[in-house]
Amino acid sequence: MTAAARHAGAGRLSMNRYISFERPDGTKSFGRLDGEKVIDLGASGGDVWLKDVLAGDLAALPATGEFAADAVKLLPVVPNPEKILCVGLNYAAHVAETGREQKEHPAIFTRWADSLVADGAAMVRPPESERFDYEGELAVIIGKGGRRIAPENAWEHVAGFAPFNDGSIRDWQRHNIQFTPGKTWPGTGGFGPSMVVTSEVEDLASQRVQTRVNGELVQDQPVSDMIWDIPTVIAYCSTFTDLRPGDVIASGTPGGVGDKRKPPLYLKAGDIVEVSVGAIGTLTNPVIDET
Amino acid sequence: MTAAARHAGAGRLSMNRYISFERPDGTKSFGRLDGEKVIDLGASGGDVWLKDVLAGDLAALPATGEFAADAVKLLPVVPNPEKILCVGLNYAAHVAETGREQKEHPAIFTRWADSLVADGAAMVRPPESERFDYEGELAVIIGKGGRRIAPENAWEHVAGFAPFNDGSIRDWQRHNIQFTPGKTWPGTGGFGPSMVVTSEVEDLASQRVQTRVNGELVQDQPVSDMIWDIPTVIAYCSTFTDLRPGDVIASGTPGGVGDKRKPPLYLKAGDIVEVSVGAIGTLTNPVIDET
Repeated sequence: MTAAARHAGAGRLSMNRYISFERPDGTKSFGRLDGEKVIDLGASGGDVWLKDVLAGDLAALPATGEFAADAVKLLPVVPNPEKILCVGLNYAAHVAETGREQKEHPAIFTRWADSLVADGAAMVRPPESERFDYEGELAVIIGKGGRRIAPENAWEHVAGFAPFNDGSIRDWQRHNIQFTPGKTWPGTGGFGPSMVVTSEVEDLASQRVQTRVNGELVQDQPVSDMIWDIPTVIAYCSTFTDLRPGDVIASGTPGGVGDKRKPPLYLKAGDIVEVSVGAIGTLTNPVIDET
Repeated sequence: MTAAARHAGAGRLSMNRYISFERPDGTKSFGRLDGEKVIDLGASGGDVWLKDVLAGDLAALPATGEFAADAVKLLPVVPNPEKILCVGLNYAAHVAETGREQKEHPAIFTRWADSLVADGAAMVRPPESERFDYEGELAVIIGKGGRRIAPENAWEHVAGFAPFNDGSIRDWQRHNIQFTPGKTWPGTGGFGPSMVVTSEVEDLASQRVQTRVNGELVQDQPVSDMIWDIPTVIAYCSTFTDLRPGDVIASGTPGGVGDKRKPPLYLKAGDIVEVSVGAIGTLTNPVIDET
């Protein structure tokens, strides 16, 4: 768990960082990073899931064990969200580069949980396409569920934040007018390394969503550049569907996607792609070809 | 369970019809219709799910109990599919009425399971819209899961068929370029009454997808009118995502949707909407306003 251990020490030291992980015995749990240690917060004896405690007070959870960080295998922050809602076209620079029109409401599409990979795990380019692209994003993780959540109450429903890479197979995304065929391939959705709780991010708006490919900065905009802010997106999405603990809203990507660069920049085997969201952390994934 | 009991006697009597239902003790199970009886095929003692047996031989399941049909509460055929894939624009008449272009590949979008309702249950118009529309469809229910399923092997992965009503909130569907906000409202996806196994539908292509609103026929095309047939759709979808037992593919709606009629025909409280797919059965739902 090199990457998680590295990020445990990054940013403000006071931040509590929650992760999902596989214990040395193979069962799955969740816990809190503490320097080079992982404090297990899940009941022992079988698989337990972060989403099942996100509606409550994480700080009140008792420790059930402790591991060296490199003794566990990191999982996506929430390995099994029921719903992953992705906001398309939420930064004006990205709307402009796609040549699309800005509408009155956000574009919402979906992924499935089996497309997610943890920090440090490989993002996978399938043999069907050479147009595998990054999309660095801020992921919003729902704590308390709800329906028709008013914007002014939206923050009460957010457990925390994490970096997200909404990896996209661009030709399949544009096969027809709906994005799904390009947006949920196995191994294309980076999500991690850890969740920072909402109350510990003092200035969300000024955190910068930055994507780097092999160290080169390719996306870089502050969260404040979003067209629809997080409370607006939560209010909108919770109007048409129930949000539940552990659901994820990938809040949209800044300008600079590889598909719209001249020349285009697609992810290929051997690349390293990183998504930073300021103090929230950095998600790092190597890219491999599916074999 | 009036509707299911009614359809148990419809079509060819020899057809085995599988349902999901709530037992009188409140636990959920699945079984087979036998005239006015329901043969329970699930283990007793708690909730059991049809999707967990769909990869196997349904005919070999032992009976675990028996109920009068009107003693149980019908559930959506598969109450909890992991994935519901919806094919958009799969009948030329519907493509034409939407004014959209026919592409080389199908349009695929998604719903979530919490939008589904059983045969006989109410479909719900939310207060946010007056543009609640029907879409009668053939639902394909996955049996054996798989990835990159070749068209020539696709039927080995289908457990059976059921009628589906891909109820849509048209203004929200068109808020932006992705359909999700109009396609997964709670109580908008009719799915039932029962699943007919693949081998018992002798001539799928000639079954007609027919929708009636208050008895008036508003959609009526044979399955053979599909632009992308079921094996093609399964091959396409299983390329970008794993299909699993109980996953549902709503295979697209014929021409005649309410939103494109002149004048438009939207569903309103008190309406009865029926979707028939020939010998596969008839799904009947009253419409109510959300209160």
